[in-house]
Amino acid sequence: MKLGRMNHIGVATPDLDASIAFYRDVMGATDITEPFVLESQQVRVCFVNTPTDSGINGTQVELLQPTSPDSAVGKWLEKNPLGGQHHLCFEVPDIHAAKSEFEALGKRVLGEPRVGAHGTMIFFVHPKDMGGILTEIMESPKGAH
Amino acid sequence: MKLGRMNHIGVATPDLDASIAFYRDVMGATDITEPFVLESQQVRVCFVNTPTDSGINGTQVELLQPTSPDSAVGKWLEKNPLGGQHHLCFEVPDIHAAKSEFEALGKRVLGEPRVGAHGTMIFFVHPKDMGGILTEIMESPKGAH
Repeated sequence: MKLGRMNHIGVATPDLDASIAFYRDVMGATDITEPFVLESQQVRVCFVNTPTDSGINGTQVELLQPTSPDSAVGKWLEKNPLGGQHHLCFEVPDIHAAKSEFEALGKRVLGEPRVGAHGTMIFFVHPKDMGGILTEIMESPKGAH
Repeated sequence: MKLGRMNHIGVATPDLDASIAFYRDVMGATDITEPFVLESQQVRVCFVNTPTDSGINGTQVELLQPTSPDSAVGKWLEKNPLGGQHHLCFEVPDIHAAKSEFEALGKRVLGEPRVGAHGTMIFFVHPKDMGGILTEIMESPKGAH
């Protein structure tokens, strides 16, 4: 695989609005996107944009609140009721090539590529095959370099 | 606090050399720093540099292998033997100002500021006060913007 940008870290929270207030009031974030529901993942989600030295495209914090206790994030929160670091997301230029490469290495890709929170195709790879980290692979948005 | 750059995510591993091979051979990283021992944290550590759209200063993956089972990372690995996401590090312009601000908000700062893996002063904040995330605050290296 060709490693791309670290697009975001996924942070699960039992209370999205409280987490937004935390990033704004405690951490000093000034650019937080409007929350929306991503039905395919059963989450309400928003992104905290972080500063960079270049001024463009910092690694985001993706805040995730489950819309159902039976969702993947809902089950994760049962074991981690405070919330915390849920996954890590890297960009790739070609989602299908990346899937084939992971599978050729014996890594368990969790389901077929589907549309993620940034509107491009994503898949997840099993944490037990990835050094304990649930890893999201995301096709770079069109126009990105 | 004034939120700075997401400097790195800290990833604990039981085998640093295997993790370096994983980031190189599976994830496709091409820029991984030489490991060194950070005595103050009882870890052997290196950084995986990730690409950015601007070409400068991507959020790094900090790989951490404990040098003692009694260290903080050693104890964390006892509970998470595969390794995984251990902490999240943001930069600030002034480490002492940041410490005062966290303390004024009732956040538990873990110990006094000390020299971190990038050679600037750092401290950690208790995960139970930070949405379940062990958070490292790091003074930006001199010359960085």
